[in-house]
Amino acid sequence: MKTISTIKEIQNVIKEIKSTKKKIGFVPTMGFLHDGHLSLMEQASRENDCVIVSIFVNPLQFGQNEDFDSYPRDIERDQFLAEKAGVHYLFVPSVTEMYPSKPSIEVKAKDRVDVLCGKSRPGHFDGVVTILTKLFHIIQPDRAYFGKKDAQQVAVVEGLINDLHFPVTLVPVPTIRETDGLAKSSRNVKLSDKERNQAPRIYHSLLQAKSMIKKGERSVGKIISVIKNDILENTDGNIDYVEILSYPELKKLNELKGTIIVAVAVHFVNARLIDNITLELN
Amino acid sequence: MKTISTIKEIQNVIKEIKSTKKKIGFVPTMGFLHDGHLSLMEQASRENDCVIVSIFVNPLQFGQNEDFDSYPRDIERDQFLAEKAGVHYLFVPSVTEMYPSKPSIEVKAKDRVDVLCGKSRPGHFDGVVTILTKLFHIIQPDRAYFGKKDAQQVAVVEGLINDLHFPVTLVPVPTIRETDGLAKSSRNVKLSDKERNQAPRIYHSLLQAKSMIKKGERSVGKIISVIKNDILENTDGNIDYVEILSYPELKKLNELKGTIIVAVAVHFVNARLIDNITLELN
Repeated sequence: MKTISTIKEIQNVIKEIKSTKKKIGFVPTMGFLHDGHLSLMEQASRENDCVIVSIFVNPLQFGQNEDFDSYPRDIERDQFLAEKAGVHYLFVPSVTEMYPSKPSIEVKAKDRVDVLCGKSRPGHFDGVVTILTKLFHIIQPDRAYFGKKDAQQVAVVEGLINDLHFPVTLVPVPTIRETDGLAKSSRNVKLSDKERNQAPRIYHSLLQAKSMIKKGERSVGKIISVIKNDILENTDGNIDYVEILSYPELKKLNELKGTIIVAVAVHFVNARLIDNITLELN
Repeated sequence: MKTISTIKEIQNVIKEIKSTKKKIGFVPTMGFLHDGHLSLMEQASRENDCVIVSIFVNPLQFGQNEDFDSYPRDIERDQFLAEKAGVHYLFVPSVTEMYPSKPSIEVKAKDRVDVLCGKSRPGHFDGVVTILTKLFHIIQPDRAYFGKKDAQQVAVVEGLINDLHFPVTLVPVPTIRETDGLAKSSRNVKLSDKERNQAPRIYHSLLQAKSMIKKGERSVGKIISVIKNDILENTDGNIDYVEILSYPELKKLNELKGTIIVAVAVHFVNARLIDNITLELN
């Protein structure tokens, strides 16, 4: 595995890969890799000739009061893990490499952003679609891999690729969980021991919702209040949102039907955790 | 030459071209082709294995009171001319093909747009960069050809390609002129006979400016007023702007140096004409 930090150098690598017609699988990340990322890389490795991973903590997708500075970073550990997962090139540009000056072209997400995490993170998905546009152009992947844990991100990226006709296939990959059900996340390390013990309740509350729906419950309000109560009674976290929406359109539902997402975000003292399940209804 | 109207079909063509490693030259146009367009196509034909031309009158780059509906269209003539110029594929999508619904992703030009034509056409370049982003992704050209007559467009597209790292080489092509000096334009047909006789004065005023600068004149104000007077005294047109800026940054200049553009826009009754020259100063 080779680590590359400049756009020019990775572009030369890409040109050579393209000339041999090898398929490129791309996994964009913000680093501090965990098993969730590694499962994306492993799947990319199975499905492509060449796997490229980017590690870039993108300032454009962090709000003013968000955790850009304190976002965990450990490049040496990341290099070790990525290599083990079959990655061929690790692209680790600096902030000035990706944004040498104020962007003269803005890419903005107008749809699927006023719900879930987007509601409390104005501009977040503008940052996501901007950096992905740049990375997709630099890496020119055949397939790009995203974790379903960030379900809204997957939905927005699907919109980005379809709307602007990027020649890239989006591959959503199922959420990887700890044995107690907690979704793997770089932010889990910021939980206190007590919070860490409580956090699996988020997923359990989603499973409870799933079970209610399977048994025929169709009241959005009732399902949401069961999830909220479960989390509030069993954790010290504050609920940011519990929402049930169509997927991937992320529209509010009067009636539960089609593909739906049940999604939750909970604030603990130093970390905001998200999780979701998608369900196929008749 | 083959004419294609759906994104799906042109994407299949592109996939096949790419698989043979042929280089693609792309000329995006709004149709009603004239010698200016044809010179772009001929150059593309010399420099690439395959030439693709798009004809799409892009509603997103026309303002509310602009001439979208009356913009001249003649697809049969265009097909004849493009084929003669060595074009292999003509991509002629409908508006609903390119914009099946309200764009969920916005691409906006923030730089180089508050001067020249951009000043009186708010949102125009947002429309330009949006359609080009879509077309670049669909066509995946190696080189894209743009006429220097639309100098601000060339500058904005240069910013688009550099800022977002499109894997496309921009090729600016010199302005083609009538024998009397008038820059070729699809809008020239909208001039009355009298206006058509006056219109070459625009270019003549630019040549006068060039000659003043060559002789050592460095006062921006003085040069601009000579151009304005020349046009006002010799045509029935109303001046939209006469500007002298750095190129391609399009910044105002206190002192004439480096590469500069002298650019003019003149309103006639049914057509607004633009022209420019760029000069290299010591």
